[in-house]
Amino acid sequence: MLDYALIHQALTRLSDHRVVTPLLEYPLINEMLGGRVLFKAENLQKTGSFKFRGAFNKIASLEPSQRERGVVAYSSGNHAQGVAAAAQLFSIDATVVMPTDAPLLKRRNTEKLGARLVLYDQKTEDRKAIAEGISAKTGAIIVPPYDDEMVMAGQGTIGIEIVTQLRMSRMEADFLLCPVGGGGLMAGISTVLRSLMPSTQLYCVEPEGFDDTRRSLEQGRRLANHGSAISICDAIITPMPGEMTFPVNLANLDGGFAVEESAIISAVDMLFEMAKLVVEPGGAVGLAALLANKLELQGRTVVIILSGGNMDLGRFRAQFKVL
Amino acid sequence: MLDYALIHQALTRLSDHRVVTPLLEYPLINEMLGGRVLFKAENLQKTGSFKFRGAFNKIASLEPSQRERGVVAYSSGNHAQGVAAAAQLFSIDATVVMPTDAPLLKRRNTEKLGARLVLYDQKTEDRKAIAEGISAKTGAIIVPPYDDEMVMAGQGTIGIEIVTQLRMSRMEADFLLCPVGGGGLMAGISTVLRSLMPSTQLYCVEPEGFDDTRRSLEQGRRLANHGSAISICDAIITPMPGEMTFPVNLANLDGGFAVEESAIISAVDMLFEMAKLVVEPGGAVGLAALLANKLELQGRTVVIILSGGNMDLGRFRAQFKVL
Repeated sequence: MLDYALIHQALTRLSDHRVVTPLLEYPLINEMLGGRVLFKAENLQKTGSFKFRGAFNKIASLEPSQRERGVVAYSSGNHAQGVAAAAQLFSIDATVVMPTDAPLLKRRNTEKLGARLVLYDQKTEDRKAIAEGISAKTGAIIVPPYDDEMVMAGQGTIGIEIVTQLRMSRMEADFLLCPVGGGGLMAGISTVLRSLMPSTQLYCVEPEGFDDTRRSLEQGRRLANHGSAISICDAIITPMPGEMTFPVNLANLDGGFAVEESAIISAVDMLFEMAKLVVEPGGAVGLAALLANKLELQGRTVVIILSGGNMDLGRFRAQFKVL
Repeated sequence: MLDYALIHQALTRLSDHRVVTPLLEYPLINEMLGGRVLFKAENLQKTGSFKFRGAFNKIASLEPSQRERGVVAYSSGNHAQGVAAAAQLFSIDATVVMPTDAPLLKRRNTEKLGARLVLYDQKTEDRKAIAEGISAKTGAIIVPPYDDEMVMAGQGTIGIEIVTQLRMSRMEADFLLCPVGGGGLMAGISTVLRSLMPSTQLYCVEPEGFDDTRRSLEQGRRLANHGSAISICDAIITPMPGEMTFPVNLANLDGGFAVEESAIISAVDMLFEMAKLVVEPGGAVGLAALLANKLELQGRTVVIILSGGNMDLGRFRAQFKVL
């Protein structure tokens, strides 16, 4: 069961391997937004996103006899790199099923980390079925992107770091905003916060048109996105909340916000100029929610999870216009 | 006298005020460059550069009766913001003499931090004389950009953090590369390293055409730059090594490197894509030196100081072409 003990165990496994990402604060951003804004910079994590934590914890928790069969994963790019880097540390094979239209940087870096790439067409093929086929044939263990206890527990280690960092500065957070795709990061972090800092209000943030978790929280059951929407947030546009992550998030969260693409682009640009951080669109939705006035921040403290920074330089230079 | 004790005293003054910037490592960058590359990310410091440290230490070291008269500084932009932010913390007035062609971001942020701006023409006016005139009239204390013991000691606190961070990971550095303008950052850091980690080889890095410190180290005396060169590294294009900083650097350094603008632009882009960090050209010259093969890194460990990240988004998007 996903609980604080399982997440603390993950932290012990990860201790020498993950980057303790900083919790950063900028006086000019505080002034502009009227409260204290603390950024948990997981874009500075190994492989450029939080995904390394969950992948490493999953692989580390396998029996050696399972592990040596290698691993297989499906991912739009961030989980792919996390799995590849973790597999490399254990010197085992990794295969990643990735869409043909994944950002080039994510594809290139996954290969550089030694993983074998299997490309598929997002519109016509089922990535999970492809991964299960590979697993059946080779015996490789599947490392799911979110619906897995060990993966969720690995992502949850961010929550323990945040609470430790806040306490070292004798602070409490009134709010925490976190990007949500499948919901593994949110499930892990919210489990820690509910246990260690229960007064903090927890909200998930999604792009408009992909606010399946927000709507599902309101209805109390898992709802899918409509297939027609598009978004620049490639990292977090999953079809519906995870089977295992959703009950956790339903129990833990105070609600969710959906943000417009224009606010997301403003957030990415602001993080560049004012925070000196490269954050991909899907990683910047938390700040976008603040820019869109979703929260009454006045005088209060908010933690914003910046979940990843894997963004093609060319796309950023072109201001996310279609190249 | 600038020594370890003075720098340690500065660290005590700064303790609750500065950001302990992370020392970051990226597996893919290591692989590409063939050694361990550790980035000290001072672009994540308050005001986006290391300059806050020296300015704060200087202002904190003043007698209250001096301090209340306010401060005045001259700067192309990073020192300006550092002085403005430190003065704001002490609730005293700050005036900054800044060139009319300073990057917009630097100018805007200095004003946002509550400083009064006095603009001057770099080609025809003497910024130091203007600041001295203001000081004579108002009694404001001058906070020099580098030729000052308290300023150098403040910058040196970075050296203590680096040694602490290396030791926590049971590491030693073979090399350290640091951007140099006036030389205050280099003087402070090198004083710490010579004292605590004497086997580390220390090198300053400058843009071609502004390698006054490199040439001065070779000749053993202060040489000026030729007036005709231009560079995108606005933060570090000082006319000649500092009077007080140069003897320190001459005693401490193993040498210096000059790097081409194209290598500097590559370094800025690489830090964006691979390190998820926004680093201004002058702050990225250390990595540029590695990209230009100035060091034989094979299997060894280098610390690279990323000294600042204050760069206009528009200039970066235009790839530093003249707008």
